[in-house]
Amino acid sequence: MECYLDNSATTKCFDEVIEAVESEMRDFYGNPSSMHNKGFEAEKKIRETTKLIASTLKCNESEIVYTSGGTESDNMALIGIARAYKRSGNHIIVSAIEHAAILQTAEYLKEEGYEISYLSTDENGTVDLEELGSLVREDTILVSIMAVNNEIGTVQPIEEISKIIKRRNPNVIFHVDAVQGYGKVKIIPGKMGIDLMSVSGHKIHGPKGVGFLYVSYKVKIKPIIFGGGQQKALRSGTENVCGIVGLGAAIKRVFEGFDEDTERMSSLRDYLIGRIEEINDVKINGNPDARAPHIVSASVRGVRAEVLLHALEEKGIYVSSGSACATNKPAVSATLKAINLDKDLLESTIRFSFSVLTTKEEVEYAADNLAACIETLRKYVRR
Amino acid sequence: MECYLDNSATTKCFDEVIEAVESEMRDFYGNPSSMHNKGFEAEKKIRETTKLIASTLKCNESEIVYTSGGTESDNMALIGIARAYKRSGNHIIVSAIEHAAILQTAEYLKEEGYEISYLSTDENGTVDLEELGSLVREDTILVSIMAVNNEIGTVQPIEEISKIIKRRNPNVIFHVDAVQGYGKVKIIPGKMGIDLMSVSGHKIHGPKGVGFLYVSYKVKIKPIIFGGGQQKALRSGTENVCGIVGLGAAIKRVFEGFDEDTERMSSLRDYLIGRIEEINDVKINGNPDARAPHIVSASVRGVRAEVLLHALEEKGIYVSSGSACATNKPAVSATLKAINLDKDLLESTIRFSFSVLTTKEEVEYAADNLAACIETLRKYVRR
Repeated sequence: MECYLDNSATTKCFDEVIEAVESEMRDFYGNPSSMHNKGFEAEKKIRETTKLIASTLKCNESEIVYTSGGTESDNMALIGIARAYKRSGNHIIVSAIEHAAILQTAEYLKEEGYEISYLSTDENGTVDLEELGSLVREDTILVSIMAVNNEIGTVQPIEEISKIIKRRNPNVIFHVDAVQGYGKVKIIPGKMGIDLMSVSGHKIHGPKGVGFLYVSYKVKIKPIIFGGGQQKALRSGTENVCGIVGLGAAIKRVFEGFDEDTERMSSLRDYLIGRIEEINDVKINGNPDARAPHIVSASVRGVRAEVLLHALEEKGIYVSSGSACATNKPAVSATLKAINLDKDLLESTIRFSFSVLTTKEEVEYAADNLAACIETLRKYVRR
Repeated sequence: MECYLDNSATTKCFDEVIEAVESEMRDFYGNPSSMHNKGFEAEKKIRETTKLIASTLKCNESEIVYTSGGTESDNMALIGIARAYKRSGNHIIVSAIEHAAILQTAEYLKEEGYEISYLSTDENGTVDLEELGSLVREDTILVSIMAVNNEIGTVQPIEEISKIIKRRNPNVIFHVDAVQGYGKVKIIPGKMGIDLMSVSGHKIHGPKGVGFLYVSYKVKIKPIIFGGGQQKALRSGTENVCGIVGLGAAIKRVFEGFDEDTERMSSLRDYLIGRIEEINDVKINGNPDARAPHIVSASVRGVRAEVLLHALEEKGIYVSSGSACATNKPAVSATLKAINLDKDLLESTIRFSFSVLTTKEEVEYAADNLAACIETLRKYVRR
């Protein structure tokens, strides 16, 4: 049995996505900037996707900027805002458990003279709201906090966070990395006080190499890639039309089944957690009261994550150790350190992540084999 | 008859590209950074393309960095080098006829405190080699000159340019925007003294949203997009595996037929030029002694390019007016101004651009209709 439970790393494209990309490549291959009909056709295809995205966010079509993916969206949000609001201040706040695309970009901005504050979290991975209030200053220009943590699945109280920030300083821009959140939890930027939001295509069964950044019309932002002036000069470069159209096909399906699918994933998640809790000395990470429907993080005492990962792989079960979207060089996870995980467990943590395509049978199979693998490894593998 | 002669704006994907992308999306959907077999499979697919690219450039596989396309490659080259060599100087030279992805990025660097010199060209669009020699200084860190101009098809004497630069100052880095050159003219970076080179997928029948930057092992460069550390931390973000594999399929076909195809395009080009020269008061732009095989630029006195473009479109012929890859807002072309084109002709210039898929019949059809359209327009349309 093949059992792909690493959907927070990447997902398989929906069939309709593959078909949309193929048809785009075959029949609508124009350059959207061309002044003839081949160009207009391509541009129209992009507009259709933009309209769909705007409907899922209840925002304006003009608030969507396409990028090459979640990482570029995060870079554009941080660097683009830092440059646009340089005169207002140089203080930026990010949570300690952000994805590397935020943390590393913040490091770059630090080199450029910005001051970065790291907001800590509790043991469940929820950001410290009191600390947040005290960190926001007059010269703070940007706060960036993810909607759903990619490693442990904690859902942040985004609306409350926004209120705390804006109460302290209404001029602060609030960016949300929603790469693991979009399509999994309900996010309406206007209603929740979000000014910018990053989304990636390949986490929701769309193509790799495409994503978008929501940029509220209230916010000014500078581009980080310069050229022919596409997308109102916010992101130059010929639009990735087939990628964008594929992204649209993925979003259509994800949002049509949203309520039913997220409910089903949540019950699979709870089932898996229940099964894991039957195993001795295994800790489930994250916030029991605010879990994303698709992520289960488990720390298995006495077993190295890498060994367990490969033992599961032999059974056809694909999971992830540590963070998924970093390079394959293992490094200690910032998230697991931030939640103050027992040192012994840092390298003993694996992540199961579901998608709308995940079945009960797969999760049962994974749970059965997990228990068996842990038992075997604990018996035979010396630490 | 449909006759797409706007291949410098974008090309139709080869069937084998569409198949490669589809199979990648369907069967090898892993995240290359994942530590299990799904990840290794995807990584292997990328490596195969990298190996192929390296063979076309006679370079090392480690010298290829994948990007979201030509624009990002150009941005990475300029900004990445400017940042890496900040201590050596702050002077950058670009030609006056570069693509907007270079010119606008240079503008950004100017705001950041770099000094930009613009190298002029002669009336054929060839850069002024004497002026180049005098522009290179001790504090020059980078020169960027395109291999083939996108509007008029002039091929620059890249090897000679490199020699002039390095003779004046061997520490200067030489970047070549080869978006219109790769696959059309022979370019071997090592042999020709090129340190960095930008390539785009969708100009050579590959997918949109993917390209690469060649970065010589001799050169240090800083990333412009930060995150998970993919591609040796030079370009973070999950690799666009299906785009990269599609790019590989395109490159395979383009280079297998290179000699035959470029020869055939050249003779189509010469045929079209001959036919255009039969029309009164039409000027062919570019360098007669150094023309790319696929671009014909013609200035038609007394006829507005936009009007001619639409008249041709009614016959199913797709061409471009002015620059192709800028936004569809018309602006006066920097290239046409740089070659000192008669003011009356600036908005009367159209571009035909071929690909390996272009047939003799199409070009004949275009030539017939061009003559007829010009005659009609000159008769009936008042300027």
